[in-house]
Amino acid sequence: MGSILYKNISLADENFEIKNNMYLGIKGEVIDYVGEIAPCEEYEVVRDGKGLVAIPAFYNIHTHLPMVLLRGYAENLALSDWLNTRVFPFEAQITGEDIYHATLLAQAELLRFGCVSSTEMYFKLPYLFKANEESGLKMNASNAIVCFGNTDITSLGEYKEYMECLGNESIKNSKRFMLDMAVHAEYTTNPTVVKAAADMAKQYKMNMHLHMSETKSEHEECKGRHGMTPAAYFEKLGAFDVPCTAAHCVHLEGEDFEILARKGVTVANNPISNLKLASGFADVASMLKAGINVGLGTDGAASNNNLNLFEELKLFATMNKALTGDPTLITPAQALYAATRAGALSQGRSDCGLIKEGFKADITVLDIDKPYLSPVHNMAANLVYSAQGCDVITTICDGKILYDRGEYTTIDVEKARFETETRAKRISEKLGG
Amino acid sequence: MGSILYKNISLADENFEIKNNMYLGIKGEVIDYVGEIAPCEEYEVVRDGKGLVAIPAFYNIHTHLPMVLLRGYAENLALSDWLNTRVFPFEAQITGEDIYHATLLAQAELLRFGCVSSTEMYFKLPYLFKANEESGLKMNASNAIVCFGNTDITSLGEYKEYMECLGNESIKNSKRFMLDMAVHAEYTTNPTVVKAAADMAKQYKMNMHLHMSETKSEHEECKGRHGMTPAAYFEKLGAFDVPCTAAHCVHLEGEDFEILARKGVTVANNPISNLKLASGFADVASMLKAGINVGLGTDGAASNNNLNLFEELKLFATMNKALTGDPTLITPAQALYAATRAGALSQGRSDCGLIKEGFKADITVLDIDKPYLSPVHNMAANLVYSAQGCDVITTICDGKILYDRGEYTTIDVEKARFETETRAKRISEKLGG
Repeated sequence: MGSILYKNISLADENFEIKNNMYLGIKGEVIDYVGEIAPCEEYEVVRDGKGLVAIPAFYNIHTHLPMVLLRGYAENLALSDWLNTRVFPFEAQITGEDIYHATLLAQAELLRFGCVSSTEMYFKLPYLFKANEESGLKMNASNAIVCFGNTDITSLGEYKEYMECLGNESIKNSKRFMLDMAVHAEYTTNPTVVKAAADMAKQYKMNMHLHMSETKSEHEECKGRHGMTPAAYFEKLGAFDVPCTAAHCVHLEGEDFEILARKGVTVANNPISNLKLASGFADVASMLKAGINVGLGTDGAASNNNLNLFEELKLFATMNKALTGDPTLITPAQALYAATRAGALSQGRSDCGLIKEGFKADITVLDIDKPYLSPVHNMAANLVYSAQGCDVITTICDGKILYDRGEYTTIDVEKARFETETRAKRISEKLGG
Repeated sequence: MGSILYKNISLADENFEIKNNMYLGIKGEVIDYVGEIAPCEEYEVVRDGKGLVAIPAFYNIHTHLPMVLLRGYAENLALSDWLNTRVFPFEAQITGEDIYHATLLAQAELLRFGCVSSTEMYFKLPYLFKANEESGLKMNASNAIVCFGNTDITSLGEYKEYMECLGNESIKNSKRFMLDMAVHAEYTTNPTVVKAAADMAKQYKMNMHLHMSETKSEHEECKGRHGMTPAAYFEKLGAFDVPCTAAHCVHLEGEDFEILARKGVTVANNPISNLKLASGFADVASMLKAGINVGLGTDGAASNNNLNLFEELKLFATMNKALTGDPTLITPAQALYAATRAGALSQGRSDCGLIKEGFKADITVLDIDKPYLSPVHNMAANLVYSAQGCDVITTICDGKILYDRGEYTTIDVEKARFETETRAKRISEKLGG
């Protein structure tokens, strides 16, 4: 493995305070030096960090990467039409190879915008794995259980896929790719299956991922069906007995906050998707007050329509001020924490998400030599409120440079685009445009 | 004047539908050809538009450009602290030369993100004029009347400045720079002064610009003081008898919508500033339903903290879905209209804001050869939801290329940055950091 030293760089320290004129050394997969004076060790590559800022790379903890195939395909529709007339028919046509190529294109986009890891919920896990092996990013991937009626989990295709993946040595040995168990949502499963999935997650030491209280109607209908909120329902069935990431949580109420805090559930806040699908406004302030770990997700490109977590970062820091009427809430450091460390922790990657010696070198470098990043009264504020995803010039994952000034070192982005466009067109034309 | 022809370009037509493989010809200040077949005329420069999309350039209809001096200077503060402990003391130190240099930096940022015109409210108008003359952008500029107690308008410094500017031949003859009358807000003026300002606007045929119903407390206190809402108050005093742009309008109620529609008042929607200062969520859906012209503004960099109208564009198209619970609201075309044509109309520039033969050539060209703009099921949706301000490669104002692939043709951006940073530091240090 190579080694690289940035000198004279600004960086976000482990408290997300920005320090200037620092040295940042990377050896192999790890950050081996952070300091104000030059390290004694030698590095193969030395880069001048003047005009650059390093932050921990982003973790996008709720997304559906292959949905870049559907970018812009389902617009200005009510949720039921969005799903039933556009998304589901399109997805029914998606092959494993489609997923492989679209995942590579989506991961190029993640890298372009400074993100190295995703908590992914889609299907055909071996193709997600194949793409992730090649791209060099990290992924916690799940094939969400969906079933209607009184199905048993072992009869589901998802179950069979999990059993295959759990027996696959390459997947088992990968540290970058982790299998998560996932239940799509309360309204798309039944209690027997949720309990069985929770038991599997415990047995195989998998994290759990699920959609929860995304829409008001889903939340209320759960109460009607089960006499309890989705949070209480999932807790009762054991879904929170393993580390769990609950996406959306727009309509939490009452005890829900206490349940998630007590069970250590991470909330994946997807503000743009919630706006675009008209789901509502998640009460992030109450989550943070309750001590819940809150990270950020873009959701899929069909409901966003990009994978640029800088946009969620800015909304996290601004919208929660308006929702509470309190402009003192959410500091730039808190927002950066949510986009990085909170996400790494949710994925079970406790040695990731901070620029700190001994941590995995997941680093995003921004070029701040821009008219809109001047002057610098408060660098952290500039990064959260003023910076653009396009200001990222280098994205490093486990010490390996995956994106550097327009070049992708592991992804053939032209091929990924061509393949994705061709395949998206094939499906769209088959369905009548 | 030069002439330029883009061939094989995609462009937003006058209905904001995206047409592919088009010719777009510019001669002098004007769009002289839009069509599918090659024009007969010759052009000095011919550019290949493959992989590019042209849209009308953006109009930022509520901002305070020189506040880039304060970018990141006042963070996580309640509005009164934000104003009284940070913004007002800082602004008290700002000189005319500071304003000149900071305006140039801010206009470089506008150009970078595809915007050619601003509805500007600040002070020391001759320095705004000087910057705008050099930069080549458009500006509707005002020095907002602020007074406390029973002051007469003629005793105010703003009045004197207006009279000087109204007598200045260079200013009078400029078409790009237009003097607007402005009243800062109801709570920072008195009825006598508002009426006098409205009379002056009528007399000199100036547009009006004001802050209105930005915060709940301001809106309610107006009702307490005057027994009517700010909209009714301003109507009564004649402020809406000339074309008026009312910024924010977050807390409109009841008859307010009808008043603004009837009087042809434009609302400048500033969603990010409203979020960051915790002012709330403007009811844009009701404004549009009432027939009100709604354009977009960034507000100043101290409450945003950039001047990238692509961010407002996306929020306009998404947040209003969540606020109404209706994801079918606000099409990409409606959002693009708000960022362009609605703004041009509000500034009294009726021959701007559309890509149409005979209109002023205010054009923004985007490079769409990006992983996050692929595939293209719906180009307009990609532009509104997926594109980045940084995708702008060329910004043209009145037929003149002002920004082109990193180069500013009229602004010395390095100098503007250096001067702005030096001056911001001078003030910050004087005030103790």
